[in-house]
Amino acid sequence: MEWSVQNFKKYTFIKFDISNNTTIQPSTLKYLTPPNLVAQNLAHLGVVLSGRGPIWLYAYLTHYYHPTAWVATYDPRLSGAVVVQSHHPDYNVGDVIPIS
Amino acid sequence: MEWSVQNFKKYTFIKFDISNNTTIQPSTLKYLTPPNLVAQNLAHLGVVLSGRGPIWLYAYLTHYYHPTAWVATYDPRLSGAVVVQSHHPDYNVGDVIPIS
Repeated sequence: MEWSVQNFKKYTFIKFDISNNTTIQPSTLKYLTPPNLVAQNLAHLGVVLSGRGPIWLYAYLTHYYHPTAWVATYDPRLSGAVVVQSHHPDYNVGDVIPIS
Repeated sequence: MEWSVQNFKKYTFIKFDISNNTTIQPSTLKYLTPPNLVAQNLAHLGVVLSGRGPIWLYAYLTHYYHPTAWVATYDPRLSGAVVVQSHHPDYNVGDVIPIS
């Protein structure tokens, strides 16, 4: 499982890639090491999660990044990311952030 | 969108049902009212989430129920629910709870 991290002005874009050769198992969550964000990001910036993976991986990652200002999950059908939790006044749950 | 709630000894099973006639939109999250759990449940019992729906709905619900002892998401491919967050010593992230 590989991770890529791209820093944008208002959020960090975190994409995971599960190789076709490997099947992710629930037990993988026990030793998963998602990218650490710098402390500054946690308070002010959001996180957009992206990648093809099971719902429980997204649920885990959503909780993992809950110290950040907000978390959104990318949905290719929407060409955008849906805010699912937020401590930031400019981002509300249910907002869709366009991702080009 | 309909909800069903079943109480078991160690967890509450919460299933949502999105009618085929309706399409859930991200903005639905803004006025969603997931089932409230009695206060006792929050500290001691877990929640298992189930239903056919988008990843961002599960991510939202995972955060919504984070005051509970633990949250798991049902995966029909596993015939069980994967623990994605836990404050309970008997339930660890990555555990699979068999659901019959």
